[in-house]
Parts: sequence; structure tokens; C-alpha cells
Amino acid sequence: MRIAVLHGPNLNLLGTREPEIYGSTTLAQIDERLGAVALELGVDVTCFQSNHEGALVDAIQGLAGIAVGAIINAGAFSHSSLAIRDALTATGLRYVEVHISNIFAREPERRHTVLASGAVGVVAGLGAIGYELALRGLVAHLTNRG
Amino acid sequence: MRIAVLHGPNLNLLGTREPEIYGSTTLAQIDERLGAVALELGVDVTCFQSNHEGALVDAIQGLAGIAVGAIINAGAFSHSSLAIRDALTATGLRYVEVHISNIFAREPERRHTVLASGAVGVVAGLGAIGYELALRGLVAHLTNRG
Amino acid sequence: MRIAVLHGPNLNLLGTREPEIYGSTTLAQIDERLGAVALELGVDVTCFQSNHEGALVDAIQGLAGIAVGAIINAGAFSHSSLAIRDALTATGLRYVEVHISNIFAREPERRHTVLASGAVGVVAGLGAIGYELALRGLVAHLTNRG
Amino acid sequence: MRIAVLHGPNLNLLGTREPEIYGSTTLAQIDERLGAVALELGVDVTCFQSNHEGALVDAIQGLAGIAVGAIINAGAFSHSSLAIRDALTATGLRYVEVHISNIFAREPERRHTVLASGAVGVVAGLGAIGYELALRGLVAHLTNRG
Amino acid sequence: MRIAVLHGPNLNLLGTREPEIYGSTTLAQIDERLGAVALELGVDVTCFQSNHEGALVDAIQGLAGIAVGAIINAGAFSHSSLAIRDALTATGLRYVEVHISNIFAREPERRHTVLASGAVGVVAGLGAIGYELALRGLVAHLTNRG
Amino acid sequence: MRIAVLHGPNLNLLGTREPEIYGSTTLAQIDERLGAVALELGVDVTCFQSNHEGALVDAIQGLAGIAVGAIINAGAFSHSSLAIRDALTATGLRYVEVHISNIFAREPERRHTVLASGAVGVVAGLGAIGYELALRGLVAHLTNRG
Amino acid sequence: MRIAVLHGPNLNLLGTREPEIYGSTTLAQIDERLGAVALELGVDVTCFQSNHEGALVDAIQGLAGIAVGAIINAGAFSHSSLAIRDALTATGLRYVEVHISNIFAREPERRHTVLASGAVGVVAGLGAIGYELALRGLVAHLTNRG
Amino acid sequence: MRIAVLHGPNLNLLGTREPEIYGSTTLAQIDERLGAVALELGVDVTCFQSNHEGALVDAIQGLAGIAVGAIINAGAFSHSSLAIRDALTATGLRYVEVHISNIFAREPERRHTVLASGAVGVVAGLGAIGYELALRGLVAHLTNRG
Amino acid sequence: MRIAVLHGPNLNLLGTREPEIYGSTTLAQIDERLGAVALELGVDVTCFQSNHEGALVDAIQGLAGIAVGAIINAGAFSHSSLAIRDALTATGLRYVEVHISNIFAREPERRHTVLASGAVGVVAGLGAIGYELALRGLVAHLTNRG
Amino acid sequence: MRIAVLHGPNLNLLGTREPEIYGSTTLAQIDERLGAVALELGVDVTCFQSNHEGALVDAIQGLAGIAVGAIINAGAFSHSSLAIRDALTATGLRYVEVHISNIFAREPERRHTVLASGAVGVVAGLGAIGYELALRGLVAHLTNRG
Amino acid sequence: MRIAVLHGPNLNLLGTREPEIYGSTTLAQIDERLGAVALELGVDVTCFQSNHEGALVDAIQGLAGIAVGAIINAGAFSHSSLAIRDALTATGLRYVEVHISNIFAREPERRHTVLASGAVGVVAGLGAIGYELALRGLVAHLTNRG
Amino acid sequence: MRIAVLHGPNLNLLGTREPEIYGSTTLAQIDERLGAVALELGVDVTCFQSNHEGALVDAIQGLAGIAVGAIINAGAFSHSSLAIRDALTATGLRYVEVHISNIFAREPERRHTVLASGAVGVVAGLGAIGYELALRGLVAHLTNRG
Repeated sequence: MRIAVLHGPNLNLLGTREPEIYGSTTLAQIDERLGAVALELGVDVTCFQSNHEGALVDAIQGLAGIAVGAIINAGAFSHSSLAIRDALTATGLRYVEVHISNIFAREPERRHTVLASGAVGVVAGLGAIGYELALRGLVAHLTNRG
Repeated sequence: MRIAVLHGPNLNLLGTREPEIYGSTTLAQIDERLGAVALELGVDVTCFQSNHEGALVDAIQGLAGIAVGAIINAGAFSHSSLAIRDALTATGLRYVEVHISNIFAREPERRHTVLASGAVGVVAGLGAIGYELALRGLVAHLTNRG
Repeated sequence: MRIAVLHGPNLNLLGTREPEIYGSTTLAQIDERLGAVALELGVDVTCFQSNHEGALVDAIQGLAGIAVGAIINAGAFSHSSLAIRDALTATGLRYVEVHISNIFAREPERRHTVLASGAVGVVAGLGAIGYELALRGLVAHLTNRG
Repeated sequence: MRIAVLHGPNLNLLGTREPEIYGSTTLAQIDERLGAVALELGVDVTCFQSNHEGALVDAIQGLAGIAVGAIINAGAFSHSSLAIRDALTATGLRYVEVHISNIFAREPERRHTVLASGAVGVVAGLGAIGYELALRGLVAHLTNRG
Repeated sequence: MRIAVLHGPNLNLLGTREPEIYGSTTLAQIDERLGAVALELGVDVTCFQSNHEGALVDAIQGLAGIAVGAIINAGAFSHSSLAIRDALTATGLRYVEVHISNIFAREPERRHTVLASGAVGVVAGLGAIGYELALRGLVAHLTNRG
Repeated sequence: MRIAVLHGPNLNLLGTREPEIYGSTTLAQIDERLGAVALELGVDVTCFQSNHEGALVDAIQGLAGIAVGAIINAGAFSHSSLAIRDALTATGLRYVEVHISNIFAREPERRHTVLASGAVGVVAGLGAIGYELALRGLVAHLTNRG
Repeated sequence: MRIAVLHGPNLNLLGTREPEIYGSTTLAQIDERLGAVALELGVDVTCFQSNHEGALVDAIQGLAGIAVGAIINAGAFSHSSLAIRDALTATGLRYVEVHISNIFAREPERRHTVLASGAVGVVAGLGAIGYELALRGLVAHLTNRG
Repeated sequence: MRIAVLHGPNLNLLGTREPEIYGSTTLAQIDERLGAVALELGVDVTCFQSNHEGALVDAIQGLAGIAVGAIINAGAFSHSSLAIRDALTATGLRYVEVHISNIFAREPERRHTVLASGAVGVVAGLGAIGYELALRGLVAHLTNRG
Repeated sequence: MRIAVLHGPNLNLLGTREPEIYGSTTLAQIDERLGAVALELGVDVTCFQSNHEGALVDAIQGLAGIAVGAIINAGAFSHSSLAIRDALTATGLRYVEVHISNIFAREPERRHTVLASGAVGVVAGLGAIGYELALRGLVAHLTNRG
Repeated sequence: MRIAVLHGPNLNLLGTREPEIYGSTTLAQIDERLGAVALELGVDVTCFQSNHEGALVDAIQGLAGIAVGAIINAGAFSHSSLAIRDALTATGLRYVEVHISNIFAREPERRHTVLASGAVGVVAGLGAIGYELALRGLVAHLTNRG
Repeated sequence: MRIAVLHGPNLNLLGTREPEIYGSTTLAQIDERLGAVALELGVDVTCFQSNHEGALVDAIQGLAGIAVGAIINAGAFSHSSLAIRDALTATGLRYVEVHISNIFAREPERRHTVLASGAVGVVAGLGAIGYELALRGLVAHLTNRG
Repeated sequence: MRIAVLHGPNLNLLGTREPEIYGSTTLAQIDERLGAVALELGVDVTCFQSNHEGALVDAIQGLAGIAVGAIINAGAFSHSSLAIRDALTATGLRYVEVHISNIFAREPERRHTVLASGAVGVVAGLGAIGYELALRGLVAHLTNRG
């Protein structure tokens, strides 16, 4: 069972970008940690980051028949990208939306996402560890252990 | 380190109430599982459920000086109770908001909570396991491991 | 077949509270009249009033397996209480919402109820007799005679 | 004492139109049943149906000095027709608004009516029997027995 | 030069309908007075009233090539009838909108009209004499004397 | 297979009414052209125009059991007439909504129609030829060739 | 009987300011014409113009006990000045609001006035002659001839 | 003359709860001070605090025939509790709403109260002394000295 | 310590203007009473009234270095004047906003003020005595006795 | 005469993506069919699809001087991309907007497009054949045969 | 060529008023600097400041025939004064709106101005130098060098 | 000191795209002119244009440690791109937003930008010279000469 991990714009800067909001863990460290958790859970993970909405759509389409689920932190695209949402739906992926910061406590334009209503669930505000928790939750969901 | 687990109205019916939305795990099973996870994490948990907003406020006030954090699923009160939010703030508890169902994919009146903007974070839609994930995330947050 | 009759906050004052709006019939008289109509219709009625939202939720939960329907005038809670609505849904009760005054002709905050969209129907503005009409309508509905 | 019964657009199709929403009782059966109830209550009823807003306005004006009250289900006109509301007000009729389906549980554009704020009351969602209940409620209201 | 005078729903009741709002002058008296003023101004007037929106549209269409202007009090249709507005525009009539009562001081749904933005101007709240003033204003406008 | 063609208010003026918006083709020419296309497609068409909302409702009801689909340009009624929408639904007609002008580029009050959400589809802005295209699209839809 | 004529900001420029909107009549000519009409009607008029909101409030207060009615074109202040409205109410003046242009066909911020809901009525869009018509209407109103 | 002093949820924490917002005076000190002022003013005061909305409703109902006025700081319930408002109205109490902090300078959800429109007046932002000022104002109002 | 007392438009009419809303105390009496209270409190007061927004701004600017606080009832300007708010902020005055009537129970446009969010607090609805209470509250606030 | 056919994100999945909404025709089949229709109409077509908004903008800019019109189904970008709209306007293309599904009957965020107000017209809900109809309509429009 | 420089309320306090927002440059220094730049650009400048909206309107009217353009920072009046906007339009001045602070990053009520839509352009947030840049931009615009 | 100049979608068409709105200066000419001004100011400029949001995000990220400020005209992306805003914030660039046309006088969807609230300031409507003015303003700001 393969799970995709998708990171949106500016997440490649994690660790250096506004650390008081986003913490000091880098994206590489997050992906590495997810690999270890995946090993523990007996699943495979594929990680991808892009600042381009179209590249994320391409990547999601490429997961058809390969992955069954996804952990997605679409960053700023979370709040507006119907194209990413459509790609996730079209590809049939079950996904959990992750946010490092608590978007529900930030500026109004960050409090609503267009991805959440199609997701299995949402994990927000728990920092980098939120990815790991989302992965555990998604795998439990996909294997009916949740 | 003590963590309170707070359940709001109708959560005492878990396992029998609309299982297609809320699953078949009972509240007792959730509390039991949280106890086991707490043991693993080296923290104590205190669980409380009430259908009365005032009883929840009383209970939260009673945690002052006793607990440092909380996992709270305030159920239907999540969407309107400033009194519970004020009690959490007044008591100085760091808390994670949990919802069994993905509230962001439900009726409009369930998509916004008054608790989220004061929370460390939110876990929604991951079923009963969401409590456990929230507990792990909160403890990591409180011990700066997140 | 048992039908619950549920009265919300301040309805215990009926007969003395703003009689130009709510009439001069007391709650006891309403309950007594409903008993007589129930006898005529061959059903049982159980009446309950509380000023406490939580007590109403508790009472509704306690009806599970006992009553099949409810007549509910949740008073001021009608306009905001998702907890009462959730309890009614969780308990599987079919219910008719009643209001003594015509709430659709009053202040804006009284013109919308959160209970109506889950109800069989609504009877408003017909005074104390509205309860009796609602009971007749609900029994007809439950026995497919409506 | 004469009571008018006014039916708006498409109600002539009752019994065949979307029976899962509107039931299988025909308009003729409703009018017949209302005649029987009227006899029981000692009042007269006059029934009228039209798909034309103007015809309903004409009919209401024609009731001046003849009827003292009305049962009105204005169908789709309920949500927009100030002209019908003005005619009812101008003619001095006391009226109860009836809807066969529970309009408060339907599409947003059907949840508000422009007639309700001028009505004695509203009966909705109780099916064809709702007309009879409304008639009983209106007569009680007009004879101060409500 | 012919000016049409168009009256909408319920205006046939003028003089008897809610005289505290609409005054005691009848529609026949208004039309008669307008005839006298028209004579003074050297124009012809044609008066028409209907409770049917479609009949008003038909009548307006029939004015093409006959009348150059109109005084219109569309009553309750003023607030919603794009069809009447379209007919006035299609027929090329210059028109003044009249209201007997001051609609800007009444219920919110009466404070906006869909006719006003296409009109030469609006006269509201001046009672039955408002028609006469509107006619004087329109004729001055059409003869460039305003 | 019979398809009804329904024209709303002021469309009888086509060819003369604001030709810069609506073009110079008359309604008779449109109906004639639709007859020719229908012949080519092997279907029958029945055309009807009225400035009266009620007459359109009557006509639609009269199509029950006779026509299976409709092309409808309800003109100004498109934006408000739930009665026409209800008649189309009650009669079980599959319909395509047509507008000669591009209503989505006009005044705000013309940009939303209450018919569209019940339609098979919408064709707008393509002038008189839009009717023909809609007919081709509807027939393809009804015969599963679309 | 004395009637005040009050002109707000920029109306001193009438005749030169955007004549395609406001016409070519000067304020002096309007006041002169109103004097003539007043003579005909047997009333006195006092005219006042200011670009200062406070000066208009002062002037209105000064009319207490002197004038019984007012014709007011408050110009740009019409849309926001509660202070002018309060002065008119405090002084007990009955007033008609006048606008030279049809404000209901202009930019959204000009379509609502805070004066209208306290006025006897409104005359808009009829050009400079609108003042005269408003004076005639107000005098008729004050002498119960309207 | 007896005046009730009613405190809502979390006000029992005054003095320790967020002192930078609510100050360091305890509720007991406030009640004590009000007793002294009451003595000076020749009235009696009865103080009550609860975190339960229903208990506040019960308490208010219990004041019927005992108290003539109330000072109420309903805390978080101020912004939503129609039940408390209804109890105050039903009991006929004249009341002044008090807030320790300036709610009009806080988060949007705290800037509007449902109690204010039924109150004699509002005192907000003046700290604990605001209760005393409200009591003085209410007594003056009730004795026509205000 | 000097406190300014600032009165906005139409408050010079107090005592005669709509006494059922504003009472029968004159502005001179209010200022005189405030002088007596100031003497008791050991502070100085300077009173100023104007119907001109600009004059109020000028006056507030002139208080820089002279007064440390203000009691302000800006009347109708309260609801819109950012200029007065800016002047108060620029001058560094701590101020309490006063309203004689309960603005939160009046028309919607009077229920929000632009001054309140910058104020120490608000006193509304307590009549002329509200000024005195506000002065006592402000002095207590400025001397840390509140 | 060259017409561009532009397809936005996820349309490359047509035929496999949610066929109950989008049908089973593939994009290649649509383009092939458009080629055949173009031949019949005597025009050339150029087809382009991308999941990248920027690539669509680049492609549209590249059509300047080459194509005179376009058929565009911008998919999820239709609802938000001012950049695509600006490119179409800047390039001077006359275009018809196409949607395979009836977007006016889907989720609220899909019911409005930013492209429609600049388009010649819109064809929606008619499935894959909608492209062909749009092409016929656009060519007729460009050759003044519409 | 003469350019007017217009300063609104509280700008006379520049240099002392909230220097962290508005900087430490005084209005006299700004006017002096503008004089120097004007000399460089070969234009004349006339500077005016007032806290009175009416005085600003008077001043703008007085510029007719004297100045061809204006630099205007209307301060708090920017957000509401249609009277100033009307005066600018009536006088035919081409103007650039200036704000010292970045109003688009401040409180919501400061983010929209009623002057901007009539202006040549807007310069905001660049401090006192913004006036100079605006003058350069306006002169370039008026001499077609921009 | 290096300043980046960032141009968004369709700005590569400057000089040919709708010259009545955007002028006839090309982007190359703007960049050239900015180079000359930069030389005068003793700073370096780096210019970049893309129609791809992702490419703009990439470019902004690449400026970290290289540039200290930016002049950005994000074109159509200005109104929606949180990703660009996040990149600017993450990179720590101080930036001025530029628009050639006066966006505050255009269609509603162009009147608000998501970049402005994070910017030093905004220059709009001054044509191509606006870039130069923004550069001067930004350099003054960065060197504390503003």
C-alpha cells in the first residue's frame, strides 16, 4: 500500500521560513521521519513538493493506480485550488489534509480550505509531528482500524 | 503531567449514535484506549463527559492547578460556546480540539468552531483514533518534541 | 406508542408570561389537554419541561427505546441548540416543532430554528391549541394516515 | 362564518406530482375532506386554485365581505408574492399558511415565505392533513377558543 | 402626445385598502384628476389597472407607437418584476415611477424597486397627488421644460 | 418524440426589441427554423409564448404525457419563477435553458437563474442560433448520443 | 406658513457642475422659481445652502418655531448624515427629500439615503422642476389636500 | 426595593482570570462593595453567580415578585442567550447590563449582546467599579431621579 | 487633572428634543452637575458642544497638554466620524463614550459606534446621570481606583 | 479562420474521471470530433490542454495573430483565473466558454465563472457534444450568421 | 500649471501624532518640500489643510479655473466623504490620492476610500515622500509624460 | 543593495495589450528605465517576468540573501495569490506593490489585493512611471530617507 506525501508552495523553505510559526524542522527531516513511520506501519511513502499548482496536479494524476492515499499540505493553495481538489477526486485518492500551523487561528483567508470537504480528515496546528499523526490516522482509516 | 479529556453533549451515545457518521467505538473504549496511550507516554489522563455546558465549564475550572492540557471534543457546543472557550483560557489549559467526524465536510453550521482559534491544534475526521493522535500531538507539543 | 412532549426554557411560566404574546393557558393545562387527546388517539404522552439545555438533552436520550415521537417547543433554545437537535437525531425520534406564537412574525433572531430542518413539520402561531394539532399530525404521520 | 381555501401554482397536480415529497392525496380529496371538517366545525369553506398570481389576487379581493379567514398554500408564490400578501392584508382576512412538505427542510429558497409574517400561524410538513389542522386552528383562533 | 397611466395589483382597492397608509382617494378619482391635468398640459392619458403581471406586460407592449411616456405605480410588482421593466424598455417608453406611500420608510422588502433604475425619476410618499406631480414632471421632461 | 419550445415575457417582441442586445431575428423565424431542425432530427416541436407566468405554468402542465423534453427561454421569469421550475419538475420534462444574450455578462440581477439548477444544461449568448444548438444538444442527450 | 428650502454641498455649483447630470438651471433660478410658486400657494419660503454639514444642522435648528416644513436636497450628505436627520426630527419639521438626478439609477453608494425614512416623501430625477413639485406636494400634505 | 445582581459563567474566577483584561478584584469584593452602595442608596441587593445558563434562568424566574431590577453581567452568555433575555422579560425586571472589559473593543463575537436591546442601559469597560455605577444608574432610573 | 466634556450635534437641544427619548434635563444642567461632581472628585472639567464635526476635531486637538481624559457624547457623529476618533487618539486622551439613550435598543444604524473601540468604556441608556457615572468611572480609571 | 480549443486542468482525464459526471468520451475523441466539425464549417482548429494556468496563459498569448476565436473549458480555473481572462482579452480572441457538466447545478463554488462575463456565450451541461455546439455557435457568431 | 495640495483632518498634527505610524515629518516640511519639487517641475503648488469637511469642499470649489490638478490626502474623510469627491469632480480637477501610512494594511474601515475610484491614481504607505512621488506622477500624467 | 522587479502574468504584453488602459510603454522600456533610475540611486535591479505563479514563487525564493527589497506588479495574481505573498514574507523582502492602471477604479474583483497588506506601500494608476516612483519610494524607505 503506497501513500503519497504532497507538499505545496513554500514548504521547501521549512525550517528557515518564519520558524516562530512553522518550527525549525526541515522538509527533508519530515519526509525522513515519515519514511520511518511508514516502515513501522508497513506502507510505502512517496514524497513530492512543488511551488507550481500545475505540477502538483500532474503529480497527483500520476499517482493513479500507484497510491491509494495521500497526506497533503497544499500550503497557500489549500485555500483556493479547486484544480488540486479535482485531481485528488479524479484519481480516487483518500487523503488527510495537514497544516503545520493552526490555520483556524490565523488570518481569515487561511481559515477555510477547499480541500477539507473532500478529505478523510484534517490535522492542523500540531507542528511537523502532525504529518506523522496524519499518516497513522490515514493508514488506520484505510485498513479499517481507525 | 495530567491531561484532561473532555467530551461534550451526546458523546455518551458513541457506538450507538449514527454509527455511519460516528463509528461503533464507545466512549468507554475511547477513554480506556487513551489511558493506555497515556501510560505509554508517561502522563495521566482524567476523562469527563456531560451534556450540560455549565457542567463542562465547572469541570474545566476544577482543572486549574491540576491539569496542564486537555483534549476536548465539545460536540455541538463546539460551534457556539464562548463560555467553554473562556473557561479553557481562564484555566490556562493548552488544548487540542478533536472531532470524530470531518466537521469541515458536514452542514455549514458545523464547519466553524469557536474553540479552534484558541487551541494548539485540531484533529478531525479520523474517527475514534483521532483522540489518541491528538493526545500524542499535545504531549509532544507540551514537551517540545513536536 | 409513546409520544414525548418537551418544553424548553420559560415555558413553565405560560399563562403569566407576556399573555398578549403567549396566551393565558398554563403549561399544566396544555399537558392535561394533550393527555386527553392522546387518550382519544390511543397513544401515551410523557411531558417534560426544563430551563436547562443539558437536562433536555438528558431527557431526550432517556427516551430511546421508550418513545417513537416527540412534540417539542424548545423555546429560546430552538434558535441555537444543535445539542438538542443532535439528541433528537441520535435517539431516532420523529418530532414536530411547536411554537405558541408565530415566530415568523417576530424579531429576526426568532425567525429561524435549528430544529425545523430535522423535524417532520412545524406548527406555529396557533396558540396552545397548536400542541394538540401537532400531536394529531404527528400520530397521523407515524401511522401513515396523514 | 366562511373560510376560503386558496391553493397556488402546481397544487392542482397533487397526488401525481413528486409523491415522495407531496404524498398521493389529490387536491379534490383535500377540498372534500375540508368540507367535512367545516361541517363539523359549523363553518363554510370555499376552495380555489390557480397557477396565475393575478387570479389569486383577484380571488382574494373577491372575498372581501364574504369570508373572514383563509387557509392558504400559495405554493411557489409563497416565497416571493408581495401582491398576494397585500391582497390578503387589504381584504382584512385572518389566514393560516399551509405547506404539505416541510419547507424549512428543503432548498434555501423555499425556507422563507413572505406570507408568514402576516399570518396567524403556519402549519408545514404534516402532509395533506395539515390543511385540516390549519382549519381547526384558524376556527379556534377566530372564535377565541385557541 | 399620449401618456399611459399604469396601476399594478391591489391599486383597484384604493380608497378602501388600509386608508391610514394609502389615503381615501379612489383610483377612479385619481384617473379623473389626471385627465383634467392632462387637458391643462395638452396631452392625452390612457389609464390601465391589473392585478396580473402578464396583463401589465401585454398592455405596455400595446403602447408601442401610441404613447411616448408612462406614469407607473406597479404596486407590489415594483419590487421584483423584471418582466415589466423589460416591457417598458422594449417599448421605449420614458416613465416616472409613483408610489402613494413613502416606500423608503416601510418594510425592507419595499424599499428597493427594480423599475427605478430605468425610470426618468421617482415620486413617492406624496399621496394621490403624487400622480399629478409625476405627470407634470414627465411632461416637462419630455418637452425639455424640466 | 416531442420537444416543447417555451418562450417567456417580451420574447414576442424579438427582432424589434433592443436589437443591439437581442438581434434582428423574429420569434416566428426562430420557431420556423426549429421546425426545420426538428424535421432533420426526427422529432416534433411545439412552440408557445406568453407574457403570463401562469399561462406558462398551465402550458407546461399540459405537456405531461405529450412531450419528453423542452427548450425554454423564460426571459425575465428565469431569474425568479419557482412556479415555472416546479411545473417543469412536476411534469418530468428534461429541459435546456436558452438565453439569446449572454446573461452572465449583464446586470447582476440577470446573472442567476432559478431554472438552471434543474436543467440538463444552459446555452447563453449565442443569439437566435442558440435555440437550434440547444435542441440538437437536448435530442442528443435524450437519445444518449451526447 | 413658512417652508424652508435647504440645499447641501456642491449645489451652489448648479448650472455649471456636470450639466449632463444636473442640468443647466442655477440654484438662484431654482430659489427664484420656488418663491413664485410659494406666492401662488400662499406660503413663504426661506432658502439656505451650505457645503458644511454643521451649518446645515445649525440652520435647521434655527427653523424651530419658524417653519413647519422643508424641502431638502442634502446632496452628498443625504447618504450618510444622521446629524441632519436628527436635526430635522428634533425641530419637528415635515420634509420632502428632493434630488435633481435619479439617484436610484446612479452608483450604489447614492441609491440609499438616511433622510428618506423620516421624510413625508421623495422626488428624484425630475430635474430642477422636482423642487417645485415637491413644494406643491408638501403644501398639499400640510394642508391635507394631498 | 430589591435589586438582583447576576453574574454569568467564569465570573467566579474574577481576580485570578486574565487580570490584564478583568482586573484583580474578586467577585466577593464586588458583591461586598455593591452591598455597601446599596445600603447608601437604601435598597437591598441579592447576588447570584452560575456557570449554568439554566441555573441563571431559574434564578431570574425566582426573582418574580421579589426584585424590581437587576444588574447583570452574563459573561459569555451575553452574546447568545435568548433564554436569559426571555426570563428577564417574563419576570418584568428592569436591568442594566454590565461588562468589566470594554466588549466593544474586543473580538467581533463579543461586540454584540442579545441582552442590550432589552436593557435600560449598558455600562462596559469601567472595570469592577462599573457594577457600582450601574447600580447607581439603575436605582436613579427606577426612582425617576436619572 | 482636567477632563474635557464633549457634546456633538443636536445635544444643545437637550431638554426640548424628543424628551420621551432624551429626557428633560438641559445641556446646561448636565454641565453644571458635572462641575459639582468634578469638584467632589477633585478634578476640573471643560465643556464644549458643537454641531460641526470639524469644530469638535479642532477642540479635541486644542486639549493636547491640557486635559488627560474626556467624556464624549458625539451624538450622530458617533456612528461614522473617524476624524473625531483620530483626533482623540492623536491627542492621547483617555475617554469614556456616553449616550443618553440606549443606542443598542434603537435603529440598526445607531447600534455601532466608531468611537467605542478606542474608548476606556461606554455608558449608555442611563439618561443624563450617565454623564456623571462616566466621569466617576473615568476618574477612577485614571487614578487606578477602578 | 482559425479557432483555438483550450482545455484546462484534469480534462486530460476525461473518459476515466468521474464518468457519471463527465461522461465516457475522451479528450482525444472530443478533439477529433471538433476537427471533423471544423472541416465541415471550413475553419481550422488548434487544440491544447494543460494542468498549468501559466501554460494556458502562454498558449493564449501565442494565439495572437493566429486565431480569431476560441472554445475554452478552463475546468477548475474557470472559477478564479483572472490571468486567463486577461490573456484572452489581451489577445483579442472572441471565445465561447464550455462546460461538460451543468456547473449551475453543482457546488456553489462552481456556479460562477470569471470567464463568462467576457465571453460571447456559454454552453454548459450538454456533455462532450457541447464543444461541437459551441464551435458551431462561435463560427456563426464570427461570420454573422448567428 | 497650478496643482493644489489638500490635507484633511488631523494632518496638521503630523510629526507629533503617532509617529510610529505617520513619521516625524511635519506638515510644514512636507509643503516646503513640495514647493521645491514643484519649482523643479515648473509648476505652482497651493497648500491647504482643514479639519472641516465643508472647508475642504469650499476650498476645492475655489480652485475652479485656477488649478488643474490636486494631490489630496483627505485623512479620515477619505473613507466616507462623497461631498469632497463631488467637489473634485464638479471642479474638473485631476487628482492623485495620497496616504502616508499603508491604509491597505490597517483596520478594515481604512482599507476603502471613496476618492480612489475618481482619482488618477493612489500612492500609499511610502511616508511623507509619497506626496512628492504623487506630485511627480500627477505632473507626468497631466503633461502626458507618464 | 539589490532590488528585484517582479512582473506577473500578461505584463510581457505591455505596449500592445489594451493600450487605452495600460499605455504604450513596453516592459523592456520599463525595465530599462528602472535600470537608469537604479544607477542614479546607487542600487542594483534584477527584473523578472512570468505568466506562471509557481515560477514567480521560485524566483522570489531565489532572491533570499541576494535582494533586500522588491517592486512587484503581480498582475492578475495580485488579487488571489497567497503563495506569492507567502514567498515574499518567507524571503523577508520589503516590497512595494505597483499597478499601471488604477485598480481601485476598475471591476470589483480587481479592487482588493492580497499583497497590499504585507507591502510597504502601493502605487497605482500612475502608468509606467509608477514603477520608477515606487523604486524611489522603496529605496528611500530602506535607507530611512522616506
